[in-house]
Amino acid sequence: MKHKIGLIGCGTVGQGLLEILDKKAAALRERHGFEAKVVAISDKLKGSVLDPDGLDIKALLGVLGAGKTLDAYPGGKGPAAALDPLDMIEKTDAGIIAEMTYTDIKTGEPATSYIKKALRAGKHVVTSNKGPAALHYAELKKTAQAGGLQFRIEGTVMSGTPVFHLAEAGLAGNEIREVQGILNGTTNFILSKMELDDMDYGDALKLAQKLGYAEADPTADVEGFDAAGKVVILSNVLLGGAIAPADVKRQGISAITRDMVKAAKAEGFRYKLVGRAAKAGGAVEASVAPRKLPLTDPLAGVMGAQNALTFDTDLMGKVTIQGAGAGKIETGFSILSDLLAIDRAVSA
Amino acid sequence: MKHKIGLIGCGTVGQGLLEILDKKAAALRERHGFEAKVVAISDKLKGSVLDPDGLDIKALLGVLGAGKTLDAYPGGKGPAAALDPLDMIEKTDAGIIAEMTYTDIKTGEPATSYIKKALRAGKHVVTSNKGPAALHYAELKKTAQAGGLQFRIEGTVMSGTPVFHLAEAGLAGNEIREVQGILNGTTNFILSKMELDDMDYGDALKLAQKLGYAEADPTADVEGFDAAGKVVILSNVLLGGAIAPADVKRQGISAITRDMVKAAKAEGFRYKLVGRAAKAGGAVEASVAPRKLPLTDPLAGVMGAQNALTFDTDLMGKVTIQGAGAGKIETGFSILSDLLAIDRAVSA
Repeated sequence: MKHKIGLIGCGTVGQGLLEILDKKAAALRERHGFEAKVVAISDKLKGSVLDPDGLDIKALLGVLGAGKTLDAYPGGKGPAAALDPLDMIEKTDAGIIAEMTYTDIKTGEPATSYIKKALRAGKHVVTSNKGPAALHYAELKKTAQAGGLQFRIEGTVMSGTPVFHLAEAGLAGNEIREVQGILNGTTNFILSKMELDDMDYGDALKLAQKLGYAEADPTADVEGFDAAGKVVILSNVLLGGAIAPADVKRQGISAITRDMVKAAKAEGFRYKLVGRAAKAGGAVEASVAPRKLPLTDPLAGVMGAQNALTFDTDLMGKVTIQGAGAGKIETGFSILSDLLAIDRAVSA
Repeated sequence: MKHKIGLIGCGTVGQGLLEILDKKAAALRERHGFEAKVVAISDKLKGSVLDPDGLDIKALLGVLGAGKTLDAYPGGKGPAAALDPLDMIEKTDAGIIAEMTYTDIKTGEPATSYIKKALRAGKHVVTSNKGPAALHYAELKKTAQAGGLQFRIEGTVMSGTPVFHLAEAGLAGNEIREVQGILNGTTNFILSKMELDDMDYGDALKLAQKLGYAEADPTADVEGFDAAGKVVILSNVLLGGAIAPADVKRQGISAITRDMVKAAKAEGFRYKLVGRAAKAGGAVEASVAPRKLPLTDPLAGVMGAQNALTFDTDLMGKVTIQGAGAGKIETGFSILSDLLAIDRAVSA
């Protein structure tokens, strides 16, 4: 089917999506009958542009790739004169909004307001933003369902590695009793370096910062806040929980020493920062903590910046998926995978 | 939606499916709106029974669980007087046939004839049988599509671990360039024992036979024939190949010695029997062979009777799924997962 799509946020993820839509247009049409026109963009730093006939994706990539704002695109406006996302939602005839702004895990804003407005305007929404998914999933899903719409969030956990698609399709029919996973690539990279290259925590962190895996202030990663946000999403989407980030028992990796890593290795174990959510009575227990895993655990072999998630189910026992947890194209693909899911649902 | 289902073959897999349909009827109705009546069974050893109003699954499980034939069920016929599957297909008003007879990897028969007849009679078909999937997938899929029907085969490669659902939903939009996996639990169990318990190949094989993982004649497993059949299915379904079992370069594990396993371990490697299919020019290259994998390979950590498959894709890079490769409930679930996929497609 043909779809008109509006983008809110056109940073790394949005540009990853545009690259994919450009490079794979023919394959998507031939193999999936999927055709997408990008008809609107609103980005705080880049500006806005609207064209109900479809924007020229190659030209957009040229402008954005050169670091220019959208006033360098015919009909586009720079950030000073740009349409706000809320106005863009009103003005565009896009049937799907892809929300790809930065995560505010404390408030979920302004993304949550954008998503609500889009759903109320009768538009499907896909997002890679952890804020709305962690704080307001149930409400947003309910609003979507009431309008016969989809609200999809594949990119919020493990980028395009399809954890939600897996639960929704391949594992449907199972009760998911527990999930546990390696949900933060930065900490997994640091722990891997500490063991494989016999490094101190501080040196491994510095290397991660130098390589761009960790930020100058690494707190969100190394103290487990990022993983905790993802555990909340997994709890509320897959286990029927209704928890908030503050409900996650959280411990980071900054107290793990080289000696602890060595001692664990000598015993046949390996430290991993594990995010876990499990049904317990009528509630969900959620935690993020460093755990010594036996080397036979499917999560123990996950090295470097990779992510993985183990589903514990009633019929299939444990099923583990491992893949990229971040990346421009990988997160851009998460948006495409949700667009294709909407296409399958409305085409069937 | 409500579905009427006919079962051809009601051995381990069929009884696994019946147990799931019994235990999870309420959950499947409430969570997925899925209701299944089993209206026909034909099994070479158990006999046959038909009831368009739906058979009593608990009563069926009682009869079959006690080792009795279907003449012990009201209206049922024992094997001597039973309806042949081909006659059953004609007489039943089931809209879906679940084909769960034993694999004949040389001819694909009689299962292929059953599947053809069911598709021509306008019935969706799901199967866990490697024979028809390895030898006749393209033809059967084409027949299904011409009739607006589904032909689904999730259980043919890793039981209910959802490799085809993953490719079809979560990874859709990617080009799959290569798959490689641990596709045979018996050989993986033997290789794991040789390394972890320092056993000879012969002793590990005997243990596998004692525990029921290996058959009295272990050739199909240890010489790679079983894995080769699965590689053919993966090649033809996921990579657009058109190969036959004889096209797979095949080498088993019987020449792997304890010393080889030890030497590999000392170098940081681990032997695994790896099935692999890769696009090469316009064709597909397929092989089964023991390979020394570095311990950082996601397949290296897969121990015991578990299976795993790595997809190498253009957008997501490598994505690996690991889970059960066999089992009564697990393979029964593979059939359920395909029934649910048909339900989603026809309900949408």
